[in-house]
Amino acid sequence: MFREQIKVLDCTIRDGGLMNKHDFDIEFVKKVYKAISASGVDYIELGYKNSKELFSSKEYGYWKFCDDEVLKRVIDGVESKTKLSVMVDVGRVKLDDVKPSSESPVDMIRTATYVKDVDKAIHMANHFSEKGYETTINIMAISRDQGPELEEALHQIEEESAVGIVYIVDSFGALYQESVEHLVKLFKSFLRTKEVGFHGHNHQQLAFGNTIEAIIHNANYLDGTVYGLGRAAGNCPLELIIGFLKNPKFDIRPILDLISSEFIPLREKIEWGYLIPYAISGMMNEHPRAAMALRESDKKENYREFYESLTNVDVE
Amino acid sequence: MFREQIKVLDCTIRDGGLMNKHDFDIEFVKKVYKAISASGVDYIELGYKNSKELFSSKEYGYWKFCDDEVLKRVIDGVESKTKLSVMVDVGRVKLDDVKPSSESPVDMIRTATYVKDVDKAIHMANHFSEKGYETTINIMAISRDQGPELEEALHQIEEESAVGIVYIVDSFGALYQESVEHLVKLFKSFLRTKEVGFHGHNHQQLAFGNTIEAIIHNANYLDGTVYGLGRAAGNCPLELIIGFLKNPKFDIRPILDLISSEFIPLREKIEWGYLIPYAISGMMNEHPRAAMALRESDKKENYREFYESLTNVDVE
Repeated sequence: MFREQIKVLDCTIRDGGLMNKHDFDIEFVKKVYKAISASGVDYIELGYKNSKELFSSKEYGYWKFCDDEVLKRVIDGVESKTKLSVMVDVGRVKLDDVKPSSESPVDMIRTATYVKDVDKAIHMANHFSEKGYETTINIMAISRDQGPELEEALHQIEEESAVGIVYIVDSFGALYQESVEHLVKLFKSFLRTKEVGFHGHNHQQLAFGNTIEAIIHNANYLDGTVYGLGRAAGNCPLELIIGFLKNPKFDIRPILDLISSEFIPLREKIEWGYLIPYAISGMMNEHPRAAMALRESDKKENYREFYESLTNVDVE
Repeated sequence: MFREQIKVLDCTIRDGGLMNKHDFDIEFVKKVYKAISASGVDYIELGYKNSKELFSSKEYGYWKFCDDEVLKRVIDGVESKTKLSVMVDVGRVKLDDVKPSSESPVDMIRTATYVKDVDKAIHMANHFSEKGYETTINIMAISRDQGPELEEALHQIEEESAVGIVYIVDSFGALYQESVEHLVKLFKSFLRTKEVGFHGHNHQQLAFGNTIEAIIHNANYLDGTVYGLGRAAGNCPLELIIGFLKNPKFDIRPILDLISSEFIPLREKIEWGYLIPYAISGMMNEHPRAAMALRESDKKENYREFYESLTNVDVE
């Protein structure tokens, strides 16, 4: 009783890279790639394609730039049907740096944008489409951008872009299932020729529940990460998505092995997952950057002060 | 925009007690009681009322028995509008041990039952109602008991019992929001004169999402526990429920303080929350006892073997 159109994208290394300046070593990424490939997941996203003129390769690891040569080192010699994805942010990539898809191991380029930058995102995504890539536009911070500007942006994407998929990105982990239902229906009403995707964050432990809600309302592209690794509270755990979907092409066991051997030790080095400051950020519909800073400070368990710092702001 | 009929019940000590043989010390329980009272939560449940002829008070702590004298030590001197609840299991309490409510600090007695034992539960709950208590029947393991026997049980409860509330208890953390919607609607269709409650478990990180789903479909009694403490993956985090509900009578801050000062250290002593063996139990609709035993063993991160032990069982 599965829906064949559903595609799952693993973005463990890409979203997880936001917690360690994209500095995973190649052997680790290769283990993730092997496990994801063996599990039958449709796509894997390994990082961002950023211009080295904007970010220093001394400060950031490989997955901030995703050079084709580095990607090839990951995938070489691994049997896989999993397609390779990279993400680009509006204004952070030189278009000329991106080779035609026929010369690159990359299959899909996802352009992340705020509603206000959608014109630029359409321009970029069309450029990648012309170069032969599968393309998406991912609308970030959607919990703060639900007015007529969003509807205008969706209308424009439908009319002017060649992308196949448009993602709802709950960057702040602020959506509840009623808002997910509303957004998926809104997206589908404007995007008559495109698929809708959902990327959740787990600040309020709702990433998986919201992903199910998106499925119920016919979103067909689902993001997950192994053991939920990702910025702050992390993302929808991939293992839960795979456990939920009934498509026999998926095998959860390579992901379970990967968590046992790699992610339990990793959690000792990188802190992600449900923590009270992230829950508060989600409730308040705030970017988790203040909560992440708190967790790096000596006040990391001082929740009341943090809560009050967010609620006692003067707003005229 | 809140729904005034919604009541929140904190069962931190009762469900959490399943992880330490109900052996919290009185000072700790008093801190929880103070914080819950200050937060404006409607009910607090401190444990089970079990017969000491069946369970040894040498083996189990106070909250396995909930003697009125012990409860008085917790609540004495604390300003509180929070009502006191205890739970009883079918067949584990001597009815004569329960004093009339006018002589007891307890306000509510919740009778936990499987569908098959509903006759006994009705008999017990009616006895407690006659003694002046608020009463509920909590139907456990509901994810395994959804056939005509459940409908018959609901019909009987409506016709024969004096309870005010009937709870859906997702003991195995196996429900998704579509099953919650189905169950709440089913309960409400039979229970024309009673309220419906929801008690989730967090094996698949769905306790909060499922609680919201229950709210959407007009369940008005919601269980939560501080920082999700409870058996195995634990319960719906109380702080998330309070963050979600808009009733101004609630104050989240005493709960945040309690987590900072008491529950972060407690997590070093008792293991609860999202862990892969619990996620697997939830996916498989299994009691978490095998997963809990695994976590006590030297194979605690051997997920594949555990997964296969559940899937490779011969069933004719």
